[in-house]
Amino acid sequence: MKVLVTGGTGFLGRRLVSALLARGEVSGADDAEHEIERIVVSDIGPGIAPLPDDSRIDLRLGDFSEPGAAESLIDAGTGAIFHLAAVVSGEAEQNFELGMRINFHASVRLLDAIRARGHCPRLVFTSSVAAYGGDMPEVIEDSTILTPQTSYGTQKAAIELLLNDYSRKGFVDGRALRLPTVVVRPGKANAAASSFASAIIREPLEGRRYACPVAEDAGVWLLSPRRVIASFLHAADLSSEAFGMSRALALPGMTVTVREMVDGLREVAGEGVAERLTFERDPFIETIVYGWATRFRPERALGMGFAPDEDFRSVVEAFIEDDLGGRFVA
Amino acid sequence: MKVLVTGGTGFLGRRLVSALLARGEVSGADDAEHEIERIVVSDIGPGIAPLPDDSRIDLRLGDFSEPGAAESLIDAGTGAIFHLAAVVSGEAEQNFELGMRINFHASVRLLDAIRARGHCPRLVFTSSVAAYGGDMPEVIEDSTILTPQTSYGTQKAAIELLLNDYSRKGFVDGRALRLPTVVVRPGKANAAASSFASAIIREPLEGRRYACPVAEDAGVWLLSPRRVIASFLHAADLSSEAFGMSRALALPGMTVTVREMVDGLREVAGEGVAERLTFERDPFIETIVYGWATRFRPERALGMGFAPDEDFRSVVEAFIEDDLGGRFVA
Repeated sequence: MKVLVTGGTGFLGRRLVSALLARGEVSGADDAEHEIERIVVSDIGPGIAPLPDDSRIDLRLGDFSEPGAAESLIDAGTGAIFHLAAVVSGEAEQNFELGMRINFHASVRLLDAIRARGHCPRLVFTSSVAAYGGDMPEVIEDSTILTPQTSYGTQKAAIELLLNDYSRKGFVDGRALRLPTVVVRPGKANAAASSFASAIIREPLEGRRYACPVAEDAGVWLLSPRRVIASFLHAADLSSEAFGMSRALALPGMTVTVREMVDGLREVAGEGVAERLTFERDPFIETIVYGWATRFRPERALGMGFAPDEDFRSVVEAFIEDDLGGRFVA
Repeated sequence: MKVLVTGGTGFLGRRLVSALLARGEVSGADDAEHEIERIVVSDIGPGIAPLPDDSRIDLRLGDFSEPGAAESLIDAGTGAIFHLAAVVSGEAEQNFELGMRINFHASVRLLDAIRARGHCPRLVFTSSVAAYGGDMPEVIEDSTILTPQTSYGTQKAAIELLLNDYSRKGFVDGRALRLPTVVVRPGKANAAASSFASAIIREPLEGRRYACPVAEDAGVWLLSPRRVIASFLHAADLSSEAFGMSRALALPGMTVTVREMVDGLREVAGEGVAERLTFERDPFIETIVYGWATRFRPERALGMGFAPDEDFRSVVEAFIEDDLGGRFVA
């Protein structure tokens, strides 16, 4: 079977591709495991780190939002699709047109390309906790209304709706996962408003000073890259019946304040590392971050077998292991 | 000021145009009343009844979903837009592509045409109670999640999200009204799954027999055409601040079962008229109708001054007065 991963050279895409290659199999809409013959990896550029050297990878660099691009990435043998390609939240907020083009229109085009093929592949879509917003209850339930207050969250929520309807109509076997903030991201800070949540761990561990743009009491609902990839694969394994009347769900995560994250960093890496952090509040970032939901009761996802990280310490340790080769700058 | 009414020759559009002409003024995004110099009436065809003979009407017949069509309907003087153009629920369900083209893509194009103009007009969008669906609570609250189970409802809910974001960004001053089932519609039965709710009143009153496709205990959340038009005008009059973090709301209506509707008909028009009804259940229609929400607590809309009809008897009487010239076939 062929697999398509959009955004496949990105931070999560690359890990997903590696995990798929390692597993060698993926579930299709028939609920059976199929051997992966080929992974079409679509992205705008080669990404910050190389993809694994594997003959099953078919790298297609180019603008996924161009007319005809989505059609060219799938064929009748494409049994599973992981749609990760997106412009991040801060960028979608500052460049409205770009966000609409990539996060919204290109996703609609992908759904229509799939529909035109008529073979109903399984599709995992990365939605986001940013789909929530506005007047939220203290704890987000599975039944909480989506009233996003960012363009990024709006685009994700709108595609969730369409994915659900295209699935209901039998055009695609979709499932949308509302990702918590993914921590710790490797590499450089990006335009995501949530970039700080990784930077406060990553930068000090790599020996750099970092000025956190939000206050210490800011909370984050987070999930580690390891658990995100495990969730993608689990989402692909679940039968469509498991999703019931909605193909979208909030993934389990953990609520951690910046203070608790710094404490976790100190525990794992010591006071010297934690002292590389300072605070320089940025109203633009804070407005977005304080609008996010930080406490959830994701009972549906937990009941379906999705799981959060054990604790924040293990998130820091996994980052050191997976991304820093087991070493940090003490 | 210029006004645009899409779907303007339709049943509601025509009444709205008449009401606007009678009022002579409309509110713009500056919260001030402006004299209506011109009403651009856009629709695919001339409709079943003529528009009022008024020099302020600029009728533009054509396919609103064609590229460039939305752009041609607005200019810098278009201060208020009522976006009613839509393919009805049953049709959108049976002809997926048509529903997506009109209800979804044409609406996105309209929003983008408005954004490109850059003058932020006020816009009232007709959403629908069909935006709700799936596992709903017994009573729909303002905080109830939208998980539509029809393509029509999905398309409406997705546009609501975009309208909210385009409003938040200052591209348009939008407000979306989730219309209850509108009863009594004049004219012929259409492809809307809700068509029966008007037909069981209209057909007997016009002397025709009618076979109701749903059981007597089927409930409907309804609003009369008179109250819908009043709600459109009220929505245009409200300041954007009144909407807070969401530009979408469910309009107040009343919950009536088919049995209660028939009782109301009998009260107003007599046993002879009510006896023209028979029941012939249609599983396709029933599946859609039983999926609809029928009980609501629209506190937000009530607090903002929107109002339902007084009782079902007055809905029947208004239909006889407005659409049958005060007479029915006894």
